Amino acid sequence: MAEIEQAVRKADRIIIGIDPGTNVMGYGILGVYGKKPALIAMGVIELHKFEDHYMRLHRIYERVLMLVEQYLPDEMAIEAPFFGKNVQSMLKLGRAQGVAMAAALSRQVPITEYEPRKIKMAITGTGAASKEQVREMLRRILVIPDECMNPKLDATDALGAALCHFYESSRPGKTEKSCKSWKDFIAKNPGRVKKDGGA
Amino acid sequence: MAEIEQAVRKADRIIIGIDPGTNVMGYGILGVYGKKPALIAMGVIELHKFEDHYMRLHRIYERVLMLVEQYLPDEMAIEAPFFGKNVQSMLKLGRAQGVAMAAALSRQVPITEYEPRKIKMAITGTGAASKEQVREMLRRILVIPDECMNPKLDATDALGAALCHFYESSRPGKTEKSCKSWKDFIAKNPGRVKKDGGA
Repeated sequence: MAEIEQAVRKADRIIIGIDPGTNVMGYGILGVYGKKPALIAMGVIELHKFEDHYMRLHRIYERVLMLVEQYLPDEMAIEAPFFGKNVQSMLKLGRAQGVAMAAALSRQVPITEYEPRKIKMAITGTGAASKEQVREMLRRILVIPDECMNPKLDATDALGAALCHFYESSRPGKTEKSCKSWKDFIAKNPGRVKKDGGA
Repeated sequence: MAEIEQAVRKADRIIIGIDPGTNVMGYGILGVYGKKPALIAMGVIELHKFEDHYMRLHRIYERVLMLVEQYLPDEMAIEAPFFGKNVQSMLKLGRAQGVAMAAALSRQVPITEYEPRKIKMAITGTGAASKEQVREMLRRILVIPDECMNPKLDATDALGAALCHFYESSRPGKTEKSCKSWKDFIAKNPGRVKKDGGA
C-alpha cells in the first residue's frame, strides 16, 4: 500500500482508464514518470452479486469515486463502444457510463472516450486484435510482473484505454485540443491573450 | 422562497420527478400532505448552451444534486422510454439518465422509472395522450394557478412522472414491492421472519 502511495505521489501525471459494464467494470491506473508510462494498479468491480439495476449503478458510482479520491487522476479515459447490438443494451451501457462519468466530473476530472477498435490499434497496431492480444502487449509494454497482472480482461481493457489516452495525448499538436477551459487555454497560450489597455 | 421552504417542511413525503434529456431536462417537485399531492416547484434545466457533451452531463449531475439537497425528496421518479429511434440516441439518453440517477443514489434517494405511456395513462386515462393534454390534466388535478405553471412541456412531463409515482405507490398491495432492502423488508414484514433457534 505504501508502495502505491509513493507511485502516485511521484507520478507527473495519472490517467485512470475505465471499461464500464453492467456486469463487470474494469479499471486501470497508469502513472506517467517523465515520458514513461507505468502500471500503478488495475482491477475489476464485480456487479453480478447485485440483482437490482440501481444498486449496480450506485456501486459503479461509489467505486469510481473511491478510485478518483484514492489515485487523484488528472484525466479519465473511457472505453466506449459507439455501436451496440440493440437499443436496450445501449441504454443500460449508457447508464453505466453516465454514473462512472458523473463520479469523474464531480471531481473535475476531464474525460476522453475511445472506441474499442481505436484502443486495440494503439496498443497492438491492429484494430482487429483480440482482448488477449491487448493483454499480452500491455504486459510487455509496461513490463508488468506476473504477480501484478490481473487476468481479467475487463481490467486489461481499462488499462488499455488509459495507455491509449497516454499515446494520443502525447502526440504532437494535441496540446491545444486538450484544453478543458478558457482559463486552461489562457495558461497554455499566454501569447494569444491581449494585454489590458488594448483596443 | 420562504413559502417553498415551508411547503417542503410541512410535507409528509416529497417526490422529485425527472424527465432527463441531453438538450433540456425537466423537473417537478411534488409534496404529499396526508393523502393529497400538491405542486411545490417545477422547471427546466437548459443544456443547449453547453456544446460539450460532458459539460451537459456535469450540469445535469450538479443541478439534480442541488434539487435533491434543496427539496430533500424521499423518492425519485424518472420518465424513461425503453425504446428509441437508434442506438446512438439511446446511449446518449442512457448517459443523461445515468448522471441524474447518480445524483439521487449518492444521497440514498430510491428511484423508480416509468415509461412515457404509463405516465400518460396515469394522468389522463389514455396512454396515447399528447404532452399538452398531460399538462392540462396536471393543472386541473393539482389546481396549479397560472403564475405557478411552467409552460415548458419538459417541466410538466417531469411533474407527471412524480404524480404517476404518487398514484402507483399509493395503490393497495404495493408496499412489499417498494421495499428497498432486506432490512426494510424485515421491518415491514416481521411475521415472515423465522425466530432464532428454529430449524
